[in-house]
Amino acid sequence: MKRRDFLTGAAVSGVAAAAAGGLAAPAIAQDKQEWKLVTTWPKNAPGVGVNAQRFADAVTEMSGGRLTVRLFSAGELVPPFECLDAVQSDVAQMAHATPYYWVGKSPALNYFSTIPFGLTAWELAGWLYFGGGQELWDEVYAPFGVKGLYAGNSGVQAGGWFNKEINSVEDLKGLKMRIAGLGGEVMRRLGVAVTLTPPGEIMPSLMSGAVDAAEWVSPWLDIAFGLQKAAKYYYMPAFHEPGPALEVMVNKARWDSLSPDLKAIVTRAAQASSAESLADFTYHNIDIYSQIAEKWPDVQVRSLNDDILKALAKTTREVVDELAAKDALVKKVHDSYMAYNQKAWRYQNNADLPVLQMRKWFFENA
Amino acid sequence: MKRRDFLTGAAVSGVAAAAAGGLAAPAIAQDKQEWKLVTTWPKNAPGVGVNAQRFADAVTEMSGGRLTVRLFSAGELVPPFECLDAVQSDVAQMAHATPYYWVGKSPALNYFSTIPFGLTAWELAGWLYFGGGQELWDEVYAPFGVKGLYAGNSGVQAGGWFNKEINSVEDLKGLKMRIAGLGGEVMRRLGVAVTLTPPGEIMPSLMSGAVDAAEWVSPWLDIAFGLQKAAKYYYMPAFHEPGPALEVMVNKARWDSLSPDLKAIVTRAAQASSAESLADFTYHNIDIYSQIAEKWPDVQVRSLNDDILKALAKTTREVVDELAAKDALVKKVHDSYMAYNQKAWRYQNNADLPVLQMRKWFFENA
Repeated sequence: MKRRDFLTGAAVSGVAAAAAGGLAAPAIAQDKQEWKLVTTWPKNAPGVGVNAQRFADAVTEMSGGRLTVRLFSAGELVPPFECLDAVQSDVAQMAHATPYYWVGKSPALNYFSTIPFGLTAWELAGWLYFGGGQELWDEVYAPFGVKGLYAGNSGVQAGGWFNKEINSVEDLKGLKMRIAGLGGEVMRRLGVAVTLTPPGEIMPSLMSGAVDAAEWVSPWLDIAFGLQKAAKYYYMPAFHEPGPALEVMVNKARWDSLSPDLKAIVTRAAQASSAESLADFTYHNIDIYSQIAEKWPDVQVRSLNDDILKALAKTTREVVDELAAKDALVKKVHDSYMAYNQKAWRYQNNADLPVLQMRKWFFENA
Repeated sequence: MKRRDFLTGAAVSGVAAAAAGGLAAPAIAQDKQEWKLVTTWPKNAPGVGVNAQRFADAVTEMSGGRLTVRLFSAGELVPPFECLDAVQSDVAQMAHATPYYWVGKSPALNYFSTIPFGLTAWELAGWLYFGGGQELWDEVYAPFGVKGLYAGNSGVQAGGWFNKEINSVEDLKGLKMRIAGLGGEVMRRLGVAVTLTPPGEIMPSLMSGAVDAAEWVSPWLDIAFGLQKAAKYYYMPAFHEPGPALEVMVNKARWDSLSPDLKAIVTRAAQASSAESLADFTYHNIDIYSQIAEKWPDVQVRSLNDDILKALAKTTREVVDELAAKDALVKKVHDSYMAYNQKAWRYQNNADLPVLQMRKWFFENA
């Protein structure tokens, strides 16, 4: 299904008509265009596939059908990891994904998804919208002919499902684990044999013993994928994914061709989606987590101890410092992100952190 | 400036034309309408006034001017605390405010802004979008002929500026303090003489000694209003405002009259605004907080100790339980919010809380 869709020709002429006609043009047929949105997500996958569909529908609705967005799930038009290429070549006009899927293009893209011990969802949005993050992202994507828009966040993820308890750094050595992103590289350096099985194969590989541990997302999606049947120690939260971003990526020439109202619609649809997505993950994680003890009594929730976290933090520092040394643009992104991350850490020690701590006095004491 | 604007007549006929013409109608003059948005905020006030203007501009831009939103700051068209009445009577078609300004209409509205020891910004969005919160809010607003949309959040607020250290519950007794919302009632029961001076008078009243302590928002706005000049002990964070919401309120008949595309535009503009606003407060609080030690060396950041927090939590429980006993609808809102708040607390003990704690290992140790 990699052929260029029959609608592409019509869409191109639609762009030209809209550009020529401007805002005053009547909403007649030649002003309508259809864009293809490819995604890296399985059809209707909770949180990600559903969120991508909501974004597509929002653009279609807000534009009254003048820009209709048609969604293609992973593999329907192009394989999931060819989404960036598809948007660059205008096979699709948009993609819904996460930036660190394209680290092969630039390692700087890690910072626009998430890095270990990095920014929370709302801090990341602050950096992107108000701290120069979007401008840096534009610079990273420019050579690939795409424009990135922040469009969602899973919030804090879980550390993963393990078939044994992890009480020391020594316990990690020789472990076979499915883990994504820079967290995988950190684990590898601590002696873990890291693999990256596709989502649909995580549960079977953990069940069969092909891996000893696996991380996927957080309670809502992990349990939907059945991981609680395959291993009983659930380590929460993830050290390596404090707030992974979802993105909408647009072909840059298509982006530039949009009339001001349609550009505003795509921009605000992505921003709205970022709020809706974080709320979706937050609500459903809270809800499903409250059911674990009753529905899956074998599950044992655990946390990594401070000695292990210290080793992970030290190794993360080595990994990101090496990353920043790769080229000038990665360093520029790294320096901007890290200066803000350090200030965020100091601020949150007197803001979000104590607020989350003090709620216990209401429920335990009052 | 309370007169009905000359544009109101034109706007009404615009609604009728849009309803009759539907989506296929050309974007000519009779399809255009202008709505007035009144706000409770001073003109261009950072975070709130600016956010309201961005929302107004987003609707205007996305609709290509078919729905132009004209903003009136506090007092320009109606006094700030008459915004709900103005929208109900269609003097303005929309307002930008926060629900707990209207607790005189229903005490249930506290839960849609914030309550002490309550939900964070992203948890609140989860409850509103996915946990039945919006439906309850619709029920609370229905008698007043308005529709509420979640449109922003300041995130965690600060506890306030004090002219002395607070080391025990005893130290609160006899204190004169400016404090808003249910937090004020909690403080009152612990012996504080509570006042609610308007924003512009907070700094002078603290400077003159008319009050001994005052809370406003968080570092970004507090410092913009000059509170650091008036008292040196800055207590962070607030026990009483873990994530206060901003709202867009729409006249219900106007809301019902919107074509599907314009309804989607207003809905998504509010949702986008919620993400942008939280990012705005988060970024600027982090940034300004990092400058305190150098720029305002006299400021001493403090936290309330656990004994005081326990007393505040116990009194909060009494206050909200009395609130819930007021009527059946308040109880319904209270029960829904509190069941979720308790589950959120348990989940966050293994999610956001340890993620915020573990970042220290990266910056202190690695």
